[in-house]
Amino acid sequence: MVTIDAQSIWGDVVRIREEAPLVHNITNYVVMNSTANALLSLGASPVMAHAEEEVEEMVRIARALVINIGTLSPAWVRAMHRAVREARRLGVPIVLDPVGAGATKYRTDTAQALIAAATPTIIRGNASEINALVAAEARTKGVDSTTSSEAAVEAGMALSRAHGCVVSISGATDYVVEGDRVVRVRNGHPMMPRVTGLGCTATALCGAFAAVNPSALAAATGAMAVMGIAGELAVERSAGPGSLQMHFLDALYNLTRDDIARRLRLEV
Amino acid sequence: MVTIDAQSIWGDVVRIREEAPLVHNITNYVVMNSTANALLSLGASPVMAHAEEEVEEMVRIARALVINIGTLSPAWVRAMHRAVREARRLGVPIVLDPVGAGATKYRTDTAQALIAAATPTIIRGNASEINALVAAEARTKGVDSTTSSEAAVEAGMALSRAHGCVVSISGATDYVVEGDRVVRVRNGHPMMPRVTGLGCTATALCGAFAAVNPSALAAATGAMAVMGIAGELAVERSAGPGSLQMHFLDALYNLTRDDIARRLRLEV
Amino acid sequence: MVTIDAQSIWGDVVRIREEAPLVHNITNYVVMNSTANALLSLGASPVMAHAEEEVEEMVRIARALVINIGTLSPAWVRAMHRAVREARRLGVPIVLDPVGAGATKYRTDTAQALIAAATPTIIRGNASEINALVAAEARTKGVDSTTSSEAAVEAGMALSRAHGCVVSISGATDYVVEGDRVVRVRNGHPMMPRVTGLGCTATALCGAFAAVNPSALAAATGAMAVMGIAGELAVERSAGPGSLQMHFLDALYNLTRDDIARRLRLEV
Repeated sequence: MVTIDAQSIWGDVVRIREEAPLVHNITNYVVMNSTANALLSLGASPVMAHAEEEVEEMVRIARALVINIGTLSPAWVRAMHRAVREARRLGVPIVLDPVGAGATKYRTDTAQALIAAATPTIIRGNASEINALVAAEARTKGVDSTTSSEAAVEAGMALSRAHGCVVSISGATDYVVEGDRVVRVRNGHPMMPRVTGLGCTATALCGAFAAVNPSALAAATGAMAVMGIAGELAVERSAGPGSLQMHFLDALYNLTRDDIARRLRLEV
Repeated sequence: MVTIDAQSIWGDVVRIREEAPLVHNITNYVVMNSTANALLSLGASPVMAHAEEEVEEMVRIARALVINIGTLSPAWVRAMHRAVREARRLGVPIVLDPVGAGATKYRTDTAQALIAAATPTIIRGNASEINALVAAEARTKGVDSTTSSEAAVEAGMALSRAHGCVVSISGATDYVVEGDRVVRVRNGHPMMPRVTGLGCTATALCGAFAAVNPSALAAATGAMAVMGIAGELAVERSAGPGSLQMHFLDALYNLTRDDIARRLRLEV
Repeated sequence: MVTIDAQSIWGDVVRIREEAPLVHNITNYVVMNSTANALLSLGASPVMAHAEEEVEEMVRIARALVINIGTLSPAWVRAMHRAVREARRLGVPIVLDPVGAGATKYRTDTAQALIAAATPTIIRGNASEINALVAAEARTKGVDSTTSSEAAVEAGMALSRAHGCVVSISGATDYVVEGDRVVRVRNGHPMMPRVTGLGCTATALCGAFAAVNPSALAAATGAMAVMGIAGELAVERSAGPGSLQMHFLDALYNLTRDDIARRLRLEV
């Protein structure tokens, strides 16, 4: 069984910084800039490309594919399908963020169809979204969760078993689920949801970690831990969500082995 | 007649923070991130969704709809029409920002068609844009105003009377017009137009206020006042437009009853 | 032969601040906000518009057109062609950023077709992109360069001679090429590529300089110099890429004649 601890997470950060893996994102308009910046601050090399004409070619040179359904339209959905099929064919890890699943039928259906077309390596969402992927009647308030992450662990386990993928449920505590195994990450700060797209950023960082670590459980856990620790470091310097966004990027860029060793609150 | 003063505006801020109303935005690419962040910093819950497949469903769970024509294309215009019709049917307040009306015929026509399809609760624009909605010959320089807000008050009154909506004209002084009634807000700072999308942010905040206050005049006035006051607080800590953008979000997040009471410069 | 030195560059900055030229951008989603903010901080007036229905009308009131292929789709490519043809017809300077040329055939082909349709005034890219426009077999890693700017000077000269345009190749040293003439700008800082879209920002600033200076060589050189100097000033106050992005905008806004005179590292 793969070891997940401060040392292994730091090892992944070092690999990302050294190898600067290309992470191909098909993501929503709201977070394109902030997730690209987070990937760059961590040390990865982001590219955003959504045209049907080029997504397969881009997947071929990428080391991870991140699919985020936060702002959909039919042409984008078609491109997402082409990209995930090519990634699956080549063994490129796929990370799916079902933003707003449960808020509209279009989002729930799109997320489920993408999962059916090519099993993601990691699905990362909030509790409402994960519930919605399992129980169609679950409701989401826009893109924010209406329930705690605890309340979605059962759904996460069902989703993981049904598809053989890792499910990461973010909230005050993050739960990373693989079959019956549940890892808890207790890092982070309540101000973080007041910055738009930090959930989407967690998804993008999952892509960077999956590019360098073949264990999806380790990759998703590392991403959530680094998100939470960088968020904690940033909040200590911040007067509100505006400065938090800035200090978060600086914290990712300056993250040390010591930051992880001291702050990691993990239950494997 | 509804009372509008520091106390009533503070009451709206408290309600937004307590209720976190879902504000559905169909807005331009440039400001999606910054307006989502401003809504979150104020305490509202933003969602961005523009697909024809889902906008009506999203409107049904929203407490306000914000339409901003800053970056148009035909599919988006169709989605805007579906969304405003559904919002009108359900009584969800609609806020329209006619970005760049007067700069191109496509923008002027789209704004006018949206107003004809479903009367907005609030129209918020700069002087050039408001003039262009009334007098087709008015010209706009891109998305920036070529005239003072004073010079558009007549047009604002005509627009308000013709459609029975509130018109908010932003500039050095903001004018909020309902029929013959004109409220002046003298808050804000000349550095604010050097940050892209603060006008669009004002529009988004109108949505949050309209979600909790049934008086469109009070809602639009509250939004303009809070924009201006947060901007003033932010400029005092800023070395330029970059830091202004950050401190503005922090100021919205930390805004107190006292900030409003001391700084509000309102003529009702 | 046009003089390019600290004095001439400062003169262009003053003209941009005084005249606030309208710069029409058809650019990628990732950088729309950050490039609009950079243009505003420098003193120009940005507008983003990509609808086929309005791009020609917008070009007619603009003083420069910036085309950036960072996130493409067929409708956008059609709009870009309409815009560049209209700009060429009217003599509005065109700046092209071939983002990711060499990474996918779609990007390489689109960039080459746009150049063939209407010669740009300035082409600005990184070394991989400039190489890819000349040698179809050159490869790009996503949107980041895989080679030094030196290694693309030959390609830049070939491109400049073939089309009669200025080519700006950014990297640790920036090379601005017009036929056989090569200007070197040695400003900037290695942390700058860790902020997404600073290359795209350089392209946008080329548009502002080209709006006020009829010499494409002088305009491109001024833009690269101001980018580099503002970046250096910003890095000195920054703890990482998050704060760099903020201080960069403040530095553009506060840039003085003295900053340019003291820091400019130019070899004409």
